[in-house]
Amino acid sequence: MKRPITRKEFLAATAKSVAAASVGAASVTLLAGGRGQIGRVGPITGQAAVHSWPWPYAKLDTEDVRKRAHKNYYDGGCCYGAFNGLVSALAEVVGEPFTLMPTQLTYFGGGGGAGWGTLCGALNGSAMLVNLVVDRTSANTIVGELFGWYTVVTFPSDVSNDYAERHQFLVNRNDKILLQTVSDSPLCHVSVSSWCTHSGYRAAAAERAERCARLTGDVAAKTVEMLNQFKDGTFRATFVAASSVTGCQSCHDIGIGNVQSGVKMDCNQCHRQKWDHLY
Amino acid sequence: MKRPITRKEFLAATAKSVAAASVGAASVTLLAGGRGQIGRVGPITGQAAVHSWPWPYAKLDTEDVRKRAHKNYYDGGCCYGAFNGLVSALAEVVGEPFTLMPTQLTYFGGGGGAGWGTLCGALNGSAMLVNLVVDRTSANTIVGELFGWYTVVTFPSDVSNDYAERHQFLVNRNDKILLQTVSDSPLCHVSVSSWCTHSGYRAAAAERAERCARLTGDVAAKTVEMLNQFKDGTFRATFVAASSVTGCQSCHDIGIGNVQSGVKMDCNQCHRQKWDHLY
Repeated sequence: MKRPITRKEFLAATAKSVAAASVGAASVTLLAGGRGQIGRVGPITGQAAVHSWPWPYAKLDTEDVRKRAHKNYYDGGCCYGAFNGLVSALAEVVGEPFTLMPTQLTYFGGGGGAGWGTLCGALNGSAMLVNLVVDRTSANTIVGELFGWYTVVTFPSDVSNDYAERHQFLVNRNDKILLQTVSDSPLCHVSVSSWCTHSGYRAAAAERAERCARLTGDVAAKTVEMLNQFKDGTFRATFVAASSVTGCQSCHDIGIGNVQSGVKMDCNQCHRQKWDHLY
Repeated sequence: MKRPITRKEFLAATAKSVAAASVGAASVTLLAGGRGQIGRVGPITGQAAVHSWPWPYAKLDTEDVRKRAHKNYYDGGCCYGAFNGLVSALAEVVGEPFTLMPTQLTYFGGGGGAGWGTLCGALNGSAMLVNLVVDRTSANTIVGELFGWYTVVTFPSDVSNDYAERHQFLVNRNDKILLQTVSDSPLCHVSVSSWCTHSGYRAAAAERAERCARLTGDVAAKTVEMLNQFKDGTFRATFVAASSVTGCQSCHDIGIGNVQSGVKMDCNQCHRQKWDHLY
């Protein structure tokens, strides 16, 4: 259980808060283009009086987080697994404010959002953490890169398959080497269905759950790798969207059957060039 | 600026925290099936010493939140708009712990996640709030219902179109009555592209941004309606998935080209019955 703070510590923290309030308010104003502080419904500024945003990131160990997130998947699903894996590591290294975060707010993200199969929860939970510790513009770049990376690598990773086989994970419900597939999409439904189709396992199988637990560890570990690079000033975005995206958007982003500009999901996964242009 | 707390208030809060720590720990254990407290990487328990989860929901006014979320869309995108709209309202009514939440962690969710077009950010931000104030099982039901509702109603709502025309919103960048469309999907790409195709506006148009600002208000307001009902004990889930879902899953959930069970997105939006069974 957490040790109660002393009066001396409390007074010191209060003094820090007053300083943080000024810094925090200023940074929020800048990030919101100066509009944040206007009117009665501006962004929450209360937290600035306690801990200014972004919260302080400290470099983490990718393998420690891979194991935490893998275990936490079994505690609360993929979104919680990634988010709590990352936040709990920061809570151990940094302490407050990470100890104050109710990580349970991510439970809903499992199965692509209440089981709806939309955004992979491991991506969603990792993205929340990125935006907790990085400014808005940089977070957008890092999260976009994370999504892109997710679509082209194989899950589970060799590292995770190896951990499982050698009983190196913190929980070991399954020690099989699981089939690896490329998801081609950040969507849970596509990622899971593709793995199930190729592996022959049902979505309800324990092996599928273990595949997603390993994936959760892999995504959280990749997030650490990127944030460590960002902290060192060496992060570079390299992902290039599928050729279908640029190909289709050469017409579809300029007025003919408008689509949302900037979308990077592979068009050909849902659209059929021939079919959709006929009907 | 926030008033510093007195020593008397601090001591009273500390006493409450000790009580909350026990309650919080107990509830986390129950919700995580008893596994949450085992091992060195269990769920963060630090926050239980300060504010136990779920955080205390107080009934809100749907129209106040619709206006906050609409305005906050312009401050930080759809995900932030919904989340900050809801959290700021609770911060005003309840105060702490909502004043402590760094709502900026939701910036990434705009445009379906760093612009990737996956889960609608207004849904993502609203879902986070639901899970911040409601236990895991109930949140899953409420979020699932919110997603379902989103797929069948028209956006922007009549209420939002009316607010804009009568200059009732807190910001009024556009007072046109905007075309209403049914999204048929919780995905940003589908929702936005469908509206653009039918309205004739490009995704980059100011009118499309205003359409999403109104939608953000509408989704946050619906979230309030559901949470108020939940608080009153009158919430009932009524959404029924499209017939294609149950139809396709009668085969595809039992071993023939396995798909993730429970997915509720309309299969026919991406799959073509005839085409996909031929090739």
